Amino acid sequence: MKLYGYWRSSAAYRVRIALNLKQLSFENLPVHLVKNGGEQHSDSYKALNPAQLVPTLVDGDLSLNQSLAIIDYLDEMYPQPALLPEDTAAKAWVRALALDIACDIHPLNNLRVLQYLTGPLALTEQQKLAWIAHWLSTGFTALEQRLAQSAGQYCFGDSVTLADICLVPQVYNAQRFALDLTPYPHIRAVYHNCLQLAAFALAAPEQQPDAQ
Amino acid sequence: MKLYGYWRSSAAYRVRIALNLKQLSFENLPVHLVKNGGEQHSDSYKALNPAQLVPTLVDGDLSLNQSLAIIDYLDEMYPQPALLPEDTAAKAWVRALALDIACDIHPLNNLRVLQYLTGPLALTEQQKLAWIAHWLSTGFTALEQRLAQSAGQYCFGDSVTLADICLVPQVYNAQRFALDLTPYPHIRAVYHNCLQLAAFALAAPEQQPDAQ
Repeated sequence: MKLYGYWRSSAAYRVRIALNLKQLSFENLPVHLVKNGGEQHSDSYKALNPAQLVPTLVDGDLSLNQSLAIIDYLDEMYPQPALLPEDTAAKAWVRALALDIACDIHPLNNLRVLQYLTGPLALTEQQKLAWIAHWLSTGFTALEQRLAQSAGQYCFGDSVTLADICLVPQVYNAQRFALDLTPYPHIRAVYHNCLQLAAFALAAPEQQPDAQ
Repeated sequence: MKLYGYWRSSAAYRVRIALNLKQLSFENLPVHLVKNGGEQHSDSYKALNPAQLVPTLVDGDLSLNQSLAIIDYLDEMYPQPALLPEDTAAKAWVRALALDIACDIHPLNNLRVLQYLTGPLALTEQQKLAWIAHWLSTGFTALEQRLAQSAGQYCFGDSVTLADICLVPQVYNAQRFALDLTPYPHIRAVYHNCLQLAAFALAAPEQQPDAQ
């Protein structure tokens, strides 16, 4: 399998964690999102992924985008260890936690959005940072309350799930933008516990060959 | 089952379509997103959904947010008609199409984001409309290319799937903001075909009791 990604992309980071948890080997193909006007806009990458976003997973003839769809694919192809609980209601809860991050937090602070804020909208650096902090704290406040209902060692009890795979890159991103994590004890604890696992530690941005 | 929603919310609209496709009856509980400073911010709704977003589905003891998690839950509890293909690769493709809308288009043009643009950022109406048009056209351009690969009568061949459930509310939203749909023939055709089905037609915003 080939994974087109970028060291600091939260969405690529999620897929790296899932691949590591499944102990799957993969070819890591960096797409530099900033250099050369953004390699994701190159003709060759656009042919692979018309949304010009990372990640893209290529497995034989299948070329797949969207990190959560990729992770579902991996979980079905390689069921051990399972990334979702078996129980229907529990599974839905975990999916909702993952989507709380993937739909309500991450898309708003993505590189292309920040580029639109400071480009066409000509916002100041201070306004951009306030925007980032606003959506991070809004999202984390809700997430913290949900984790208070379901977290054990991880987001849902004591097994690693899709929710943890989404949480860790989002906390990494929040730390990069200096969000104060004091109000979020469950988020901090789960993040800490996940980073003790090799699958998470080895997927960290700084461990990637294209990290700068 | 109880569905807390809002007539014009794309995410609530998705869940209404899924419930109709499964022929499930439900209690439609409107949460007015604008009146009274936004009823989603009331203490009673916050207790149900700390993210202060719609929809929320309540089924017995389970209270579930995130439209895609809700739809997955319904699809597992009430398997007929299936909303995802059986084949693993096809299923992942359909999930990716749904997420192309749910992660890459919808969150950027959501009410709370538009309120931040015109509130704290004090953007003009024209800048707000340009923002909406930018993310709609960026997302639809990529989606159109993917549909060219997989669409038949619907987004994936000739069966209704989760992708159609996400597409129809997003096209409704695009029309509301007067996006020119000429460049997107596959999107237009699928939208047209879906609206011929009662499950989609009855879920339309204007058909809801809280429509104004």
